[in-house]
Amino acid sequence: MPAKRAIVLLSGGLDSATVLATARSQNYECYALSVDYGQRHRAELEAARRIAAALGAHEHRTMRVDLAGIGGSALTDATLAVPEALAPGIPVTYVPARNTLFLSLALGWAEVIGAADIFVGVNAVDYSGYPDCRPAFIDAFEQLAQVATKAGVEGGRFQIHAPLIKMSKADIIRAGADLGVDFGATVSCYQATADGRACAKCDSCRLRAAGFAAANLPDSTAYA
Amino acid sequence: MPAKRAIVLLSGGLDSATVLATARSQNYECYALSVDYGQRHRAELEAARRIAAALGAHEHRTMRVDLAGIGGSALTDATLAVPEALAPGIPVTYVPARNTLFLSLALGWAEVIGAADIFVGVNAVDYSGYPDCRPAFIDAFEQLAQVATKAGVEGGRFQIHAPLIKMSKADIIRAGADLGVDFGATVSCYQATADGRACAKCDSCRLRAAGFAAANLPDSTAYA
Repeated sequence: MPAKRAIVLLSGGLDSATVLATARSQNYECYALSVDYGQRHRAELEAARRIAAALGAHEHRTMRVDLAGIGGSALTDATLAVPEALAPGIPVTYVPARNTLFLSLALGWAEVIGAADIFVGVNAVDYSGYPDCRPAFIDAFEQLAQVATKAGVEGGRFQIHAPLIKMSKADIIRAGADLGVDFGATVSCYQATADGRACAKCDSCRLRAAGFAAANLPDSTAYA
Repeated sequence: MPAKRAIVLLSGGLDSATVLATARSQNYECYALSVDYGQRHRAELEAARRIAAALGAHEHRTMRVDLAGIGGSALTDATLAVPEALAPGIPVTYVPARNTLFLSLALGWAEVIGAADIFVGVNAVDYSGYPDCRPAFIDAFEQLAQVATKAGVEGGRFQIHAPLIKMSKADIIRAGADLGVDFGATVSCYQATADGRACAKCDSCRLRAAGFAAANLPDSTAYA
């Protein structure tokens, strides 16, 4: 029997690398999808390429979408600063409808290759408060996928896998380490340097460093 | 009181032009969004620009997404022919997850400009059998929008308007004519020439021609 195919959204960060390793450990033939949406931390796209190869993705594609044109986020608008201190509410690094868009692209590719499984590394615990990282969002997208697609209408059953959604950052790091993820190759920082070194100040860096500390594992992140 | 803002998906075809005219007639300040997804009928993007201007869109943007890379449709894969005869089932011109993707882009832009209303010209009557043109799809996307966005989480109520969804092509043409749409400026053909002339043979051309005949209105389409 041929391996089941899955689309795995791969940002190049620690979480999605762990998700790819998880899907591989479940014997999926993995089609890794990265999205170049004009993010300021370009280094994560290069990291995604390395991770896809290292973890045995069957194929890796980077799709381009010009979200930068609509702005509204510190990740896509160079005139907005990435916050370096915690603030209440949904932060300015939130990219409007980003995961909806990413899952849409994944869904389109899934239909083309006949995959019914989509993996995404969203997390609703140690996260930045983004609305599209919550179980309610994943459930709603799964419902949508059934009615949005030819495969769904013809009786296929799409499943959106979010294996990290209820894990702490420390749990994710432990799981990734067990699966052999080379965290040093991943880039989480929202304002990483061109060669992928991290600022140690943004939300993403702070969550990541706290995760390594809580997991009691060495932090191999390259800092600027 | 300032006008309410709406995103209007504008393909450059007859249906979405009528939708833009409808939204304008309801006094929305319209932000027209076209998507360059590598479609073979490039002339519709030029038509969209003309229509946005003619119908008084406040702003018009064309976002690029490289769907061509995933293929799977006669509209994005030059090696697949556009059918020129009716066939059972969902046709090869179906673009996987296209309307999911378009609405995702619209949702992102809506959040940025503070719009709660998105207009889309899908139609479930005289259509090509696409799954993402049905009321169930629109309803599922509206549910998704509530949980996917900062605005939704903060209590905003997104509405996906699909004013044509239950209209016949003849009804749409009559409505558009009443609202002053210049149908000669619209491009529906799946394989239009570079200057927008129609083949008269594809599904889209046949539905359009039959609509003008049923509406008993002159067909101003430029044929090749």
